[in-house]
Formats: sequence, structure tokens, C-alpha cells
Amino acid sequence: MSDISDVKALVFDVFGTCVDWRTSLIDDFTKWSKTRGINADWTALVDGWRAVYAASMDEVRKHPERGYKILDTLHRESLEKLVAQFAIQGLTEDDLQYLTLGWHRLHAWPDTVSGLTRLKKKYIISPLSNGNVALLTNMGKFAGMPWDLILSAELFEHYKPDPETYLGAAKLLCLKSGQVMMVAAHNNDLKAARKLGLKTAFVARPTEYGPHQKYDFEAKDNWEIVAKDFNEIAERMGC
Amino acid sequence: MSDISDVKALVFDVFGTCVDWRTSLIDDFTKWSKTRGINADWTALVDGWRAVYAASMDEVRKHPERGYKILDTLHRESLEKLVAQFAIQGLTEDDLQYLTLGWHRLHAWPDTVSGLTRLKKKYIISPLSNGNVALLTNMGKFAGMPWDLILSAELFEHYKPDPETYLGAAKLLCLKSGQVMMVAAHNNDLKAARKLGLKTAFVARPTEYGPHQKYDFEAKDNWEIVAKDFNEIAERMGC
Repeated sequence: MSDISDVKALVFDVFGTCVDWRTSLIDDFTKWSKTRGINADWTALVDGWRAVYAASMDEVRKHPERGYKILDTLHRESLEKLVAQFAIQGLTEDDLQYLTLGWHRLHAWPDTVSGLTRLKKKYIISPLSNGNVALLTNMGKFAGMPWDLILSAELFEHYKPDPETYLGAAKLLCLKSGQVMMVAAHNNDLKAARKLGLKTAFVARPTEYGPHQKYDFEAKDNWEIVAKDFNEIAERMGC
Repeated sequence: MSDISDVKALVFDVFGTCVDWRTSLIDDFTKWSKTRGINADWTALVDGWRAVYAASMDEVRKHPERGYKILDTLHRESLEKLVAQFAIQGLTEDDLQYLTLGWHRLHAWPDTVSGLTRLKKKYIISPLSNGNVALLTNMGKFAGMPWDLILSAELFEHYKPDPETYLGAAKLLCLKSGQVMMVAAHNNDLKAARKLGLKTAFVARPTEYGPHQKYDFEAKDNWEIVAKDFNEIAERMGC
């Protein structure tokens, strides 16, 4: 725990913290598949897709010689494997593109936009996400999140929790790490941020993984802020 | 001239195109200097500062081995030379910092915010400026410009009109260059953008340089859009 009065910018994890990716994707694909006449267990596909997310970024981390791949590319590669594995029939190239870009069409949790709007009056607000710049930009517009700028792993060619992401964000903002607060629903994200001197705020999103949620029901350390939602963070930050 | 119906994003030159840097700085410094008791010809300082802008970026371009320097750093270095040249007395370190950050506190032209607000509903809008990320972020908040993201020369470690800036912007947006429209009050910026396939929009800002304006009173080529202000651009783009 430390003084938060120097904070000038709040940077947000996005998937799970700002948006409900699971419900958004399942609802989107279920509705879309009816018009397309494609049959699949979309809930299983979405859960399977997210389940291989960390491993797909690990591959990038382990093989720098292959060059950085943006998250849209990782999502597409994982999707193709899952489509084969689940034996989903009848998908065209356009369909695969539509599904991949589902990650650009995620809905915010009910408190996200109001909390961000309050925080924006006094602080710089930005995502700091593994999503690529276009994904985060499109999602920001889709969900109405009023970002001041878009900070993405793509800008640093490193995925969180690599230090380059947190330190790179502070550097681009011309701020010291202690002037930046990381907001996340994931304890491991905050642990990595705090190690580098960033301030930390936790908000639980206990339904992020639906019935499969195993972690992050509560704060696992004495983060500077532990709040029930973004409006409570705004309140604690004097907005 | 070519079809603009594929445009998905408009990227804006900022200094001169979106904001009136000259009047903003002169007014800011004149007011501030009275409270600080510092005497100087602020109009001459501001004009002199902008006059060395292109040369300061040329130095970065010519000496890649020295590493990229952000615009805040170039502004500060130029300021120190001008303060000596103009023999301005009594400036502390805090004062030099205040003056340098004057470039973060620029006011928009009267049509800028309303035009951007209209365009934002249908398109991605972003600066594409030689200002660094923090400068553009702070200026966006100060002037109320509702950017979706901040695209800066800093992200590409190249200053406009280097091709890396225009192409880098399109790449981060996952768009083809023809899906991006460059908006500027400077014909040379548009010329560089068009050469790389971007669409172009010109708006004259005939008072940008005050009595010293020599160029850019009018469009010098058949840019896709030639408009009197940002609201006319919005109208032409169907907003």
C-alpha cells in the first residue's frame, strides 16, 4: 500500500476487467449462427478459445525470432484449430473473419462506462491490454468506452505480464511508474504492475469465466484500491 | 482524386490544423509572465521557436545513431537556445518546463471540436502528429478533442513526412492505406500521404502563422476533400 495522490493516469486491463467477453461472444455467435445456418456449441467454442489464450502468447514470448504476432492473428490461429477440433462445418473465410473480429465487439460491464466517464474528468484513462491497437480502438467505439488513448501490448511487441508493457505505458505517458495506476480483475496482472512501481486497483469480476471461474474472486494482496466496481474506483480517486 | 467510400479512419495533423498554436502560446506566456515578473517578447519567442521546428526534426532524421528524440525534448532544446539568444533573464528550471509544456496547452480552432465530434460517430478519428504521445494526450484533454486513440510519430520513431508514420498508422489500425484519410492544413503533409495511398483532405488555416504566413493559403492539388473547416469535412463524409 502506498500513496496514490501522485497518480495521473489509470490504465485498464480490458478482457474481463472492462468487458464481459464470454457472454458477449456467446450471444453474438449464437444469434449470428442462426442467420448463417451454422451449428456448433458456441459456449464450448468460446470457453475453449479463451482457454488457449495464455499458451498462444507464450509461444510469441518463447520465439522472438518468429517476430511479434498481434492478438487478432493469435485469435485467428487458435480459432482454426478449434473449428477443426469441434468439427464445425460450413464456415467460409468471411465467417472465420467475422468470428475472429467478435473480440472487437465486446460489451462493457454495467458499471464500466459510467466509471470511466467519471475518471476521465480528472485522469488520463487508457486500456493497457494484450489486445492489438485496432481491436481495442474498435471495441472502445463499440462499447462506448471513452478512452483518452489506446495503449496496447502491440506498441511494445510484448504481452503482459512482460515488464516492457507496464514500463512502456509509463514512458509513453512521460510519467513515473508510481504516477500510473493499473486497474485489473486479475491479481497476477496487478502483481506484475506493482513489482515495477505502478499503483494498483482491483475489481472482482466473479462471472468473467461463467461456471468455470477458478481464480480472482477476491483481492489476493493489499492493492491500493479494492473496489466492487469502476464507480467505487472513481469515488476513491476523488471523482 | 479517388473514391472515398472505403475510408474508415481520419487521421489529423494537429499543430495548425486542429489547434492554433501561435495565439495559444503567445496568450499563455504573456499572461503567465506577468505573474512571474519575467519580461520578454513572447511573440518573437514563439515565432522563433516554430521557425526552428523543422530543422530540429531534420537533426533526428540525419542522425539515427543518436536515437529518436521526442518532440518535448526537441522543444526544450530549442527553447534553451532561444532563451540565450533573446537574453531572457530569470527563468528557473520549473519555468523552462512550464514553457515547454505550453505545447500541451493549445486551444482548438473554433470548428475543430464540433467537426471531430461529428466525424467520430461514423469514423475512427486520431491525430497523426509529430507531437509525442503524452503531448497529444494532454492536449486532447485540454482542448476537448474527442480522439479515439493517439497516433504519434513517437510510436514509429520517425517524424512526418517520413513514410513510416503514414504507413505505421494504417498498420496499427489494421487498415489499407486507402481506408485512411489524412487531414491537414499543409499541402506537403497531404502530398506525402497521397504518395503512399492515403486519401487526403485539406482545410486552410490562413492565420496559423499570423502575419508571417507564407504558404498553404489554399489547396495546391486536387485533394479528395478541400473544405473551409472541419464541419464541412464532416458533411462531405456523410456525418
